[in-house]
Order: sequence, then structure tokens, then C-alpha cells
Amino acid sequence: MNKLLITNTRPMGKDLADILIVDGRIAAVGQNIAAEGITVEDAGGRIAIPGLVDAHTHLDKSLLGYPWYVNEVGPRLIDKIDNERQVKRDLGLDAHIQSMRQSLQSVGYGTTLIRTHVDIDTDQGLIALEGVMETRRQLAGIVEIEIVAFPQSGLMRRQGTDELLDRAMAMGADLVGGLDPCGMDKDPKGHLDTIFAIAERHGKGIDIHLHESGELGAFSMEMIFERVRALELQSKVAVSHAFCLGHPDWNMTQGLIDTCAELDIPILTTAPPSRETPSLKRLLAAGVRFGAGVDGFRDTWGPYGNGDMLERAMLLGMKNNLRRDDELPLALHVCTTGGAVVMERTGHEIALGGRGDIVLVEGETLAEAIVTHAPRKLVVTAGNVVARDGKSLRERP
Amino acid sequence: MNKLLITNTRPMGKDLADILIVDGRIAAVGQNIAAEGITVEDAGGRIAIPGLVDAHTHLDKSLLGYPWYVNEVGPRLIDKIDNERQVKRDLGLDAHIQSMRQSLQSVGYGTTLIRTHVDIDTDQGLIALEGVMETRRQLAGIVEIEIVAFPQSGLMRRQGTDELLDRAMAMGADLVGGLDPCGMDKDPKGHLDTIFAIAERHGKGIDIHLHESGELGAFSMEMIFERVRALELQSKVAVSHAFCLGHPDWNMTQGLIDTCAELDIPILTTAPPSRETPSLKRLLAAGVRFGAGVDGFRDTWGPYGNGDMLERAMLLGMKNNLRRDDELPLALHVCTTGGAVVMERTGHEIALGGRGDIVLVEGETLAEAIVTHAPRKLVVTAGNVVARDGKSLRERP
Repeated sequence: MNKLLITNTRPMGKDLADILIVDGRIAAVGQNIAAEGITVEDAGGRIAIPGLVDAHTHLDKSLLGYPWYVNEVGPRLIDKIDNERQVKRDLGLDAHIQSMRQSLQSVGYGTTLIRTHVDIDTDQGLIALEGVMETRRQLAGIVEIEIVAFPQSGLMRRQGTDELLDRAMAMGADLVGGLDPCGMDKDPKGHLDTIFAIAERHGKGIDIHLHESGELGAFSMEMIFERVRALELQSKVAVSHAFCLGHPDWNMTQGLIDTCAELDIPILTTAPPSRETPSLKRLLAAGVRFGAGVDGFRDTWGPYGNGDMLERAMLLGMKNNLRRDDELPLALHVCTTGGAVVMERTGHEIALGGRGDIVLVEGETLAEAIVTHAPRKLVVTAGNVVARDGKSLRERP
Repeated sequence: MNKLLITNTRPMGKDLADILIVDGRIAAVGQNIAAEGITVEDAGGRIAIPGLVDAHTHLDKSLLGYPWYVNEVGPRLIDKIDNERQVKRDLGLDAHIQSMRQSLQSVGYGTTLIRTHVDIDTDQGLIALEGVMETRRQLAGIVEIEIVAFPQSGLMRRQGTDELLDRAMAMGADLVGGLDPCGMDKDPKGHLDTIFAIAERHGKGIDIHLHESGELGAFSMEMIFERVRALELQSKVAVSHAFCLGHPDWNMTQGLIDTCAELDIPILTTAPPSRETPSLKRLLAAGVRFGAGVDGFRDTWGPYGNGDMLERAMLLGMKNNLRRDDELPLALHVCTTGGAVVMERTGHEIALGGRGDIVLVEGETLAEAIVTHAPRKLVVTAGNVVARDGKSLRERP
């Protein structure tokens, strides 16, 4: 039996306790747990939180390990998309190596569960998917990776992409992706019908990038709702970004939010400061499953970010103007348990029977741990130590 | 003569050069400057930028050095203001010690010039001003501090505050402050007439906190414009926050921005992700002087922040969706030279005759230095080394 005892820790900032993990699950939380013959890690009074969950990223995109990428890309979405395909070709970017680098950097920051979108297009075919699947295999037990087959370059506008998505699902992708049904393909019906058909055929879920804001985003949301109802895909379809839910028209957005709750459509955010984003408190109050992610970082899209979901909790808190000590833990919840719930992982919390994914963080309180987001002392996945002092034990390629 | 030679550095990310500082001013920038008898600092190829400028903060408010402050304050502005006065009394907060702590932390991050607002109210009188003035005296040559006498608790609603502001100016405050003429005092005419009269009497400038958004903020801006014109105070009146300039009504905001340019009214931002903020590119294009600050941090208002203006440049870049390598330096400009220009300090740049305030930062490019904002290798104020490896040489009390 695999056993780990973390002593002298404060689960979620509460009183000192020990946490015993047996065979990947939390077997006891309490005082003076017997330690004979068990590996012991002394937390030195640090706060324990559940493993961080990066529920929206792009493991195949980052340029980690390369010299600084000088970004000179044009202002339109399509400029960025076309530029990225070109740079990938020019650099011969290897999705396996890049996803190893990013995943292990994230593990150093305490992430134990990732949902990644992976580009599927008619230029590169399924090679990025193969690379990220190899990373998933190699990092099993260190970080769990869920894969969305993502038509980044469009679906209806690039013939053959639908067949590639279909093959991606057959190969082992977990969800079908989508992207701005109006803005990208200019054929919302065609786009949505196609991805819903592929998902139905494979009995899998969907996660749609929806950057469309205001009324246009609301229109696409309504089209998604229609299909979720018709195909009875409640709880199987998530929407990422959903900037339209941050629109200031309270009535319009409340209708959309209530329908997300009714149809159990989870929302994923990356909390970008420059955009209107869904309100954390409104989504939680409505009972919508809500997770967060770091998005792509240090890639051809932009220079920001590093993979740290504790820093992302800070940005999410700042974006939602959370200032009180009873508010900031809501942002941390979204960046841990919330994301796991979106990914249908149960027990992702520090409680009896919970997953043995634990991160030791610095601070007197959860709020301090979030705003300072100092290097993580220890990261444990399923009862195994996977990172210390901000670095994953497995070296990055 | 006080001489310092910084060798092997990349000014603003450009080609390797040496920088010679003589008596506080940059005397040469070039290759192979003779080093005999001069103190030499080898930059190891690092990028040199001008001293960071924190042009909007509150040195008298932070709780640095105290145990974590558990924030349970109410949602209204007045809740936060009343709570703060209470906490200050309860803790016996010493504005001198707190401003020493914050200033020296900021010096560690590379800040060499600060504009701070200091609370003046009928509870504590002028004691905070005295404390921050003592800090200014003690830190002369390490960091320059400009002081705004700030009626945080209101002016018309608390009788006697006007006399205190008057005395504050006589004691040596540099500017008169103001706060939300409509929202705070509910007497915009009274509030503005009072602070403009005090400023005129002392021949000093003004810096007004304007959180009022949308049409209300535009109304207060118009009242400010009226007084700047009538009293011929062009270039003497700054507006902090100015959220109303971030309102989506382009025509309304363009009119306000153009008038700020016409009357030379500088704008200061702290780039809060949760609010509409003035657009960096629009202000610069209109020729408005534009600086930035960290605002208060780790105080009774909220937990975020640490004093790092390079991180603030990142937040300003994220807020303005700056992604290209030719865009991010604009955010750094606002956080260095831009703020200095607001404060009427000339030559705050790496050029012949410029101020000898230099910070060595990490990264291949300016963009990388901003987004990673790693600990600063070296901070130089007026030709003297004041911080190394992220820590000020002078210890914090």
C-alpha cells in the first residue's frame, strides 16, 4: 500500500492537522495520526489546498524552451491563427516536447489536473494530438490531462477538418472543441451541427471557445442551448470564456446564466483583465459549474502567463473585485475544486475519501497565499510527491 | 565627484553598452568607457531601464510588517473609509514606520520616484503627513517622494478638513488632493472650489482621485475643466483613476480626453482589472501625460499588490490587451518616464544628461522583463546603488 502522511499542516488555512493519504485517497485528516512505517512530510505549519486545476489551457502552443518570441502579429483573430500555423511550421514545434515542458512547469506550481485544447487542422493533421497524448501517457500519476480536439483554424472554412476531429475522437481525445460559431466560420448552424454530431457519434462531451461578446455571443449561446435540449446533452457541453456573460445588461445575462444552470452547462474562464468576463459570484449563486485556466501562455498569441493557477486565482479575484477574506477563497475554489467538478472529477477536496492531490502554500491565510503566490513548498499527486520548492521532480525536456 | 560605471548592459533592450553616471546624471552611454578610479557594476548583459515611477500610491496605509489583516469590511466606499480610520486607531498605525516599510520594499523593486497621497482628516489631523515627511527626509537620495495632502474622509462633510489641508500645504505637502466631488461629499461645487482655492493660495498643483464612472465622472471632469480654465491652472491639475475615460461611449470619452490634452491635465492609473480604465493608446495618441501607480496595497482596502511597478506594467499591458513586442514597452514607458513627466521631472530616461536612476532587469527583451518581472539585480538612484537582488540595501524598520 502506498501511504503518505503530511504532518503539521493547516488544511484550507484552518487548525493544524495531519493528512494521511493511502492508495491515492485521503484516508484520515486529524491530529496525531500514527506514522510508523509511513513516509512523512512535515508541512511546517503551511496551508494545504487541493491540487490546482488548470481547466482551460493549450499545452501544444507554448514556446517554452525557445528564445523569446518577438510578437509582431496583426490585430485580427485570423491574423493570430494564421501566424501561429506558420510559426509552428517554421520552428518545427513538437507538441509532445512543448506539452511536457508546460505540464511539468505547471506541476511545479501545484497543478495536478489539466484540461487542454489541442489544435486539429488540415495543415498539421493529428500530430499535435499524438504529441499531447504521449505526454499524457508519460505523466500519468504526476498530472492528469484531459484533451479537447480543437478546430483552432476553423471547421466549415477548412474542408476536411470535420473528418480530422472525428479521427481525433476515435484516437482518444476526451471532448470535441468548437470556436466562435459566428465569428470564426461565419456559419454558426454548420459549425455547431458538425461538432454536436461528432460528439454524439462518440458519446463524448463538448467544450466550445466562445469569445463572441454582447448580443452576438448571446445568440451563439442560444444556439448551443437549443442543441443541448434537443440532443439531451445536459451536463455534457461546456463553454469557455463566455465573455457575453459579462455584458452589463443584467437581464440579458441573467437569462443566459439561468439557462446554463438549468442545462448544467459549465463555464470556464481565464479572467483576462481586458475583457468583460462572467461574474464569479453570479455564476456560483446560480449554481453553474465554474472552472478556470491559464489559457495559452508565452506563445504566438501573447507573452503573458506562466502556468501558475494560484496567480490565476489572484487575477480572478482582482477581476471580480474580491477583497474580503471570505471572498478570495471563492477564487481559489474555482481554481481547484471548481475546475475538477467541471471535469467531472469527484472528491477533489481535502476531506475523507478525497483525492490525494495536495499542495502546500505560503501564508497566514488563504487570502495571503493567493495574493503572494510564493513558490509551492510541496506538491503531491495521488499520494506521491511530484514537486518541491516550485520545481517538478521530473525534469523538463 | 560621485561616479558609477555600469558595464555590459543593454539600455532598453538594445545593444550592449556601458552607462557612466557622474554626480547623479548620465554622463555617457557607449562602448569601452574608461573605468579607472570609478566604481564599476557589471550588468552581465542585463537590460537597463530608467528607475520605476510609482505615481499613485498611499505610503501611510499599508499594513506591511503586521500580521495578516483579515478583511471583513462592508461593500460601500464609506464602509472602507470609516473602517480604515478605526483600524488605524486600534493598531496605533505609525505612518512614518509604514511609509518606510513600503518605500524600501518599492526601492527593492526598482522604484526611485513616488507620488503618495497621505490621509488628512479631523481624526488624525496632520500626524500621517508628519510621518511621511520624516520618511521622505530619511530616504532622500534613495527614493524621491512627492506628497499629496489627501482628504480621504471627505472635505465638506467633515468640518475643519479644509483648514487641515491648508496647514498641510504650509508644512510642505507638494499637491492638494481631492476625492470624488459628487460621490464622496455630495457637493461637487463646494469640494472643488475648496481644493482649488487652497492650491491657488499656496501656488501648488492638485491631484484628484476620481472613481466616479460614466456620466457622473464626465460631469465631475467638466467641473474640473471649468476651474482649470478659469484659474489658468493648465498643467497643474492631475486626475487619478479617471474610470470615466474608460467608458465605452467613444465620442463622450474622446471629448474628455481631448480636453485633458488641451488643458494639459495628466492622468494616473492603477490599471485595476475590475474597472473600466483609460485606454493607454488613446491617451498617448492624444498627447495626454500618463503615469501609473500601485495604489494602496496590503491595507484595509484590499489584499492585492506588493509595490512592484514592473508587475504593474504587466497588469497595465494585460488591461490594455498589449501583446506585441512593440506594444509592451508602452506600458513600461508609462510606469517609468511617463510617471516622471506627470511629476514634472525631466530627463527620466537613459540618455545623455538623464537622471542616474537605473534598474537592471531580467529578460531577453523588454517584453520578457515585464511579463516575468523577476527580482531586480541592481537598482541605482542618482548614481548610487540602493538595492541588489530585489532587496533595498537600507533595511526596513
